[in-house]
Parts: sequence; C-alpha cells; structure tokens
Amino acid sequence: MQRIHVRELTGRTGERVRVAGWLHHQRQLSKLTFLLLRDRSGIAQVIVARPEAIAELAVLESESVLEVEGVVVAAPQAPGGVELHEPELRVLAPAAAPPPVDLRLAVPKEQLPTRLDHAPVALRHPRARATFELAAASVAGFRTALDRLGFVEIQTPKVVGTATESGANVFRLDWFGRPAFLAQSPQFYKQTMVGVFERVYEVGPVFRAEPHDTARHLAEYVSLDVEFGFVRDHFDVMAVLREVVAGMVEGMRERAPDAVERLGIELPEVPDEIPWLHFSETGVDDVDLAPADERRLGQQYGDFVFLTGYPMAKRPFYTHPEHGRPKYSNSFDLIFRGLELVTGGQRLHRYEDYVAALEARGEDPNAYAGYLEAFRHGMPPHGGFAIGLERWLARLLGVANIRETALFPRDRSRLTP
Amino acid sequence: MQRIHVRELTGRTGERVRVAGWLHHQRQLSKLTFLLLRDRSGIAQVIVARPEAIAELAVLESESVLEVEGVVVAAPQAPGGVELHEPELRVLAPAAAPPPVDLRLAVPKEQLPTRLDHAPVALRHPRARATFELAAASVAGFRTALDRLGFVEIQTPKVVGTATESGANVFRLDWFGRPAFLAQSPQFYKQTMVGVFERVYEVGPVFRAEPHDTARHLAEYVSLDVEFGFVRDHFDVMAVLREVVAGMVEGMRERAPDAVERLGIELPEVPDEIPWLHFSETGVDDVDLAPADERRLGQQYGDFVFLTGYPMAKRPFYTHPEHGRPKYSNSFDLIFRGLELVTGGQRLHRYEDYVAALEARGEDPNAYAGYLEAFRHGMPPHGGFAIGLERWLARLLGVANIRETALFPRDRSRLTP
Repeated sequence: MQRIHVRELTGRTGERVRVAGWLHHQRQLSKLTFLLLRDRSGIAQVIVARPEAIAELAVLESESVLEVEGVVVAAPQAPGGVELHEPELRVLAPAAAPPPVDLRLAVPKEQLPTRLDHAPVALRHPRARATFELAAASVAGFRTALDRLGFVEIQTPKVVGTATESGANVFRLDWFGRPAFLAQSPQFYKQTMVGVFERVYEVGPVFRAEPHDTARHLAEYVSLDVEFGFVRDHFDVMAVLREVVAGMVEGMRERAPDAVERLGIELPEVPDEIPWLHFSETGVDDVDLAPADERRLGQQYGDFVFLTGYPMAKRPFYTHPEHGRPKYSNSFDLIFRGLELVTGGQRLHRYEDYVAALEARGEDPNAYAGYLEAFRHGMPPHGGFAIGLERWLARLLGVANIRETALFPRDRSRLTP
Repeated sequence: MQRIHVRELTGRTGERVRVAGWLHHQRQLSKLTFLLLRDRSGIAQVIVARPEAIAELAVLESESVLEVEGVVVAAPQAPGGVELHEPELRVLAPAAAPPPVDLRLAVPKEQLPTRLDHAPVALRHPRARATFELAAASVAGFRTALDRLGFVEIQTPKVVGTATESGANVFRLDWFGRPAFLAQSPQFYKQTMVGVFERVYEVGPVFRAEPHDTARHLAEYVSLDVEFGFVRDHFDVMAVLREVVAGMVEGMRERAPDAVERLGIELPEVPDEIPWLHFSETGVDDVDLAPADERRLGQQYGDFVFLTGYPMAKRPFYTHPEHGRPKYSNSFDLIFRGLELVTGGQRLHRYEDYVAALEARGEDPNAYAGYLEAFRHGMPPHGGFAIGLERWLARLLGVANIRETALFPRDRSRLTP
C-alpha cells in the first residue's frame, strides 16, 4: 500500500490508508491511546484501542518513527476533521531518548540558544519548518522572476586569492600551504559575467568575519545576487529589483501558502512602481541614514521605498557617480518595513574610471588585475544588487534575531551543529 | 528605441533597430568596413560606409562595447541571413588593449592554462558561453524534477566545526581565532533535514583539498545533493536519480537548445528503467572497479547503467548494508558513458547502528554528537546521492579536462582569477 501524507486524509473517509511519520505525542486514557503522528504535511490523530499496540506505544519515546495503516473516520474535533481507527503500527526507528526540545507547543518555549544547540530536532517544529518553506519559496520566486527576464544562473568560487573588496572582516584559510580567503560576495565575478551573459544571478553563501555578535548579523549567509548590463542608470536596476521582490512574494504565495498561514504573516503588496526619494531630499546631513531615518521613511511611504543617490563617500569604489552631481551616486537602498533590505546601484564600466577610482582611494590597481581585465576589454554600463536571504525572512517574519532564519547559523561563537 | 538582441534581427527586414554588444571583429575594405557585433544571442554583421564611422571604428580595439542603430537588410551570406546598413554607432566603452585571447576562431587556439588565466575574456567565446548555458540549464532541470517530486531546497553551512566525514583532504580556516573547516559535502546536514522536510536537495559549493593536480579533480566544485526519507531501499533512490538525470537532460533540451547545437553534443536518452547489475555479478574480485571495468560496463549497457551493492569496505560508515548479505551495501554508482558519475545509496537510520558503525571503525561517536542527535531522535529509512555538476558537464561535452566546465576553477595551484 502506497504511503500518503496526513494532509491527504481529509476526504478519504471509510478508506484504509497508510501514513508514516514521527510520534508527536501520545495521551493514554484508561482504554485508549490518542496518538498524534506528524509528517511534513501536518499532524494526524490515531485512536489506538488494542492493548498490545497500547503497550508497544507506551515504551516509545516521542519522535520515534512509525508507519500506521488504519481506517479514515470523520472526527470534527481532530486535526483535518478526520482520524485513523483500527491502526496497525510498525516502528521504523525508535527514538533513543526524550526530545531535547518540546515540539508540541504552538510556539516553542525554549530560548533561541537552546533551539540552535539542538537544531536537528528543533527544526522539526512546525513553525521552524514553515520558516524554511518560506526560504525555499522565496528563492524559487527569485529565480522564476529572473529567468523570465532572460537572466542566466551562475556559480562562482567561494575561495579567492586576494581579500580585495574590503580587506576587513575576511576569513583566512590555508590553501595547500598558501593563504586564501573566503569570498565576502560574488561582486567581482558577477560583474565579470555580465561580459559573457549580459544578465546573471547567483544564489550562494557569502562569508563575513563580523566581529560583533549582534541580532542582525551572521558570519555566513545566503546572498541572492543579481547583475546585468546595458542599463541606462540605476533606475533600470531598481525596476528589475521590483520584479524580483514581487517574484519572491509571489513564490511564497504560490508555493508555501500553508507556511504563510501557520506563521500568521502578512505578505507585502509590492506596488507597480516603488516610491523613491533622493538622499538630498531626506533632510539627513550625514553621509548615511540612521535607523530612525529608515523607520521614518517606512512610516511615510509604506512597505517599500527606494532611497537613491547615497553620497559616494559611503559607497564602494566601483559605484557609478551621479551624472552632474558627482558627490552623489547612482546607487540605492531598498527599505522594507522601515529597515534597509537591499543595496544596489549602477557600477563603473570604463577601465580608466576603475583605475582612477582605485588610485583615488590609495589602492594599487595591480592588486585588482584579474577583476580589471573584464573592464580593460570592454564592459557595458551595468548594475545590480544583493539580497540577504536571512535578512529578508527576518523582516518578513518580524523576528528579533536573524538566527531564527538560518538552518544552522554561524557566528563568532557558533560553529555547530 | 528599445535595444533588441541580434538573434531577433531575422524577420525584421526593412526596420530600423537598435542592437548593442561587443566589437567581435572588423574587416576594412577600400570603402567599407564589415563590423561583426557580438551579443549574448549571437553575432550580427554591420556594413559601415560613412568615412567618419570607418575612421572611428579603425582606432577601436576588439571587445569595445558599441550600440548600433541601423536598417535590417536581407543578406543570405551573413549570420542569421540579415545585416545592418546605414549604421549610427555609439561607443559605450572602448577596450583599453587588444584581447588576451582570440575570440574569433570557431574553436579557441589558446591552451587551457592561458584561457583560464584570462577567463574574464576567454569565457566570452561562444563555445565557453554555451558550456555554462548548459550548466545553468542542467541545474534548472535538476530543480524542476525534484520540485515535481515534492522536494524542498535547503542551504546548509559551508564552514563546519569538525572535519569528521573523512578527516583527510579538508581545508582549515581561522574562525575568530578558532580552527574550522570547509565542508566537503552537505551529507550530514541533508540527512538531518530529512527529519524536517522528508525530501530535500541542495545546490552548493563543496571543497576538497585534493592533493593531486589531475584532469578529473577540482578543489572546489558544485555539488547537486539529494536526500529523502521513507524509502524501502536504494532502488527507491535510484528511481529518483533516474528522474533527476532525465530532468537535467530535459532542462538542456528546453532551455539551451542553441548551446547544444553550438557545441555539437548529443544529449543522452535516459531509459525509463536504467539497467543495473550487482557488484557480485561483475566478475571483479577487488572491492572497487577499475576505470577499465567502468568502460566495459558502458560498452555493454549503453549511456547509463547502475552498479549496485558495492562492498561495505569501500563505502562510508553511514552506508546501509544489504539485507542478508552484510558484506555488500545498499549503495550504487551510476555509470554514464563508461565513467562513474553519481554515487548514492541507502543510509543507516537507527541510532544504535550509527554508534556501532562508528565504533567498528575505531571512531568516537562523541565527535559526531551534533550529527547523531538527528538519529537519536527518530529518523526514517532514507537515502540520497550527489552529482558533481562539473563532472556531469565534462562527460557530456567529452572534454579531457574538468577545468573546462568551471567558470573560475580552483585547484592546488590556481586561486585566480
């Protein structure tokens, strides 16, 4: 008999079926045991009346894996409106100890560090599972939007020979006796690949040796990177980002509606045109926005607002300056619900502009030879952006700590599990 | 005027259009210049007759980026059967030097090391571009097949706290003053996630400090990983692998037909049931197959054949033994065109089996505590496999060196570009 998922039980009243999953909970009454069996789709109630089966269950720890054949019976009070009667049980794998975290409460009672220490079990909680269903759906929506726009997916190396982009916060490793570094972003590679495919994206890990243990930073995270050529300026980049964010929301709506409901989150509406304002219009004197400024913009403009034209002083050397006002840049931040979510912009594309920009910052262009080769041999005007997957999820879920949105987060003090 | 790609020129005879791309080549006759303009979709011929334009072009290096507006004229001898007349040219970015590799020959004349040294430009060759279009299409087909089967995509950490899976060939790094390691595979994490989602896959980098510089190995490569639960045995895993490989072929057929044609490769037919034979039937005495054995199987069975039941002695500790013949395992290799492409199998799923397997190999189960927690708390029978993306492409393209199939390959001696 083919196994079905517990969500498929509804509407099968009277049929004998096979389900399988984890022993979520059992409640022993005088002559009956109510068994809750959990699989990836939900939880089913099983009524166990045979004394031998009750005895067999009684010695099993929660999270043991069971296969159950039984008859589907309507039961309005049970999850899904049905339960299984006359079950035959088979133990596929007994658990060796009680679970280290309680998976039965609607919201886990353990503090985050405990849940992270026991992630292999804690991730089985339906809320945790829902979070990572949303992660997968967001990434699928990201790709669908970009595939539709003619982008090509690339995979670029995560170990690099030079720590050029910022120098600070980079992890060093031993590469056959030579020093090497973990890539902080695929920035240089994705720009280079614009010379090949014109439009590219990458989903991959990036590494930041972030010295502060904050609720907003991870030392390894998933970066959704986009770069494309033949743009007029950063407004073309913002238009693609709008499509991408709409695609990510659509991905969740289509692929993970249960998870959206289970977590009780409200998916944002992405306007056809996201409002924008220029840095010079913010009334901010500094070269950067304070968190309070971002919140204020969120209150004023809604879920999404672009802030464009950040002062060049605050942007990386490859940023393209604004035409006619070179103090400002053709770059932007996307502010989502009052917090910066995405940074992007138009990049320099002429070789001599790169050489000049590096020299102006006191850097040696020779250290960037591999990167500069792309520009030395013709690159179109281009731009792009990067979205941190975990940051996106954290904003969307409204969680206080970004570690809730990584399966096995990595930070200054956490390398396991 | 909206830019179009050169492939779209066909059928627009008489229209004035805008194209943009790279100066692939120019041939100066006495009163005309034949300009070849390359974009991601192909190459267009432009007839330049205005003396000023001819002079402007004459000083431009190949690979300069141009925008061209012109009238589409039928020209049976030109690429696509059309060419552009009366062009207006605009230089978007001049190249600063002649290209370091010749992109104009049908097959590049430079040796592989030269092409790798100058990858930012060499990857623009239409054959190289086609290779990585096939990579993207293969990965898209991989995901489509698995999404259809109810799998969930995951992202797991690439920096790990212990070098457990093999110990050897692992890269060490400095993690805020502590030792850490680059993940050699997502094996432990993908198994753990079977406890959450039942069916998972991951596309991500893996790292092997392979001490030998061979044509078959990379120190960093893209691994397509699959793992799922509630299997009977490895034949369920082989059935999913069959769907995945068929999906990858289908992905290329649907998404990259031009690349298939440009490279002149023959896509394999994946039979509905891939033939298989048990290790004990191969006539091989040793615990492993020699390359000659793999080739022989390929000749005998065609493009695809499974070899099952490899001796346990050659398989990792988490391999599930064969029922009734514990010397053999519930594992398999998929041999593609006479060479091993994929390794997979059923894994152990009971906690006590893990403890026993580790102790039998003289390992301390405490060193695996994070991994074993998943099994301590109930895991279903499960299995999976991993496909090396570059290896898949190398077999398919029939290239002698796997470095042809990585954008920016990493090996013992190569860390740049």
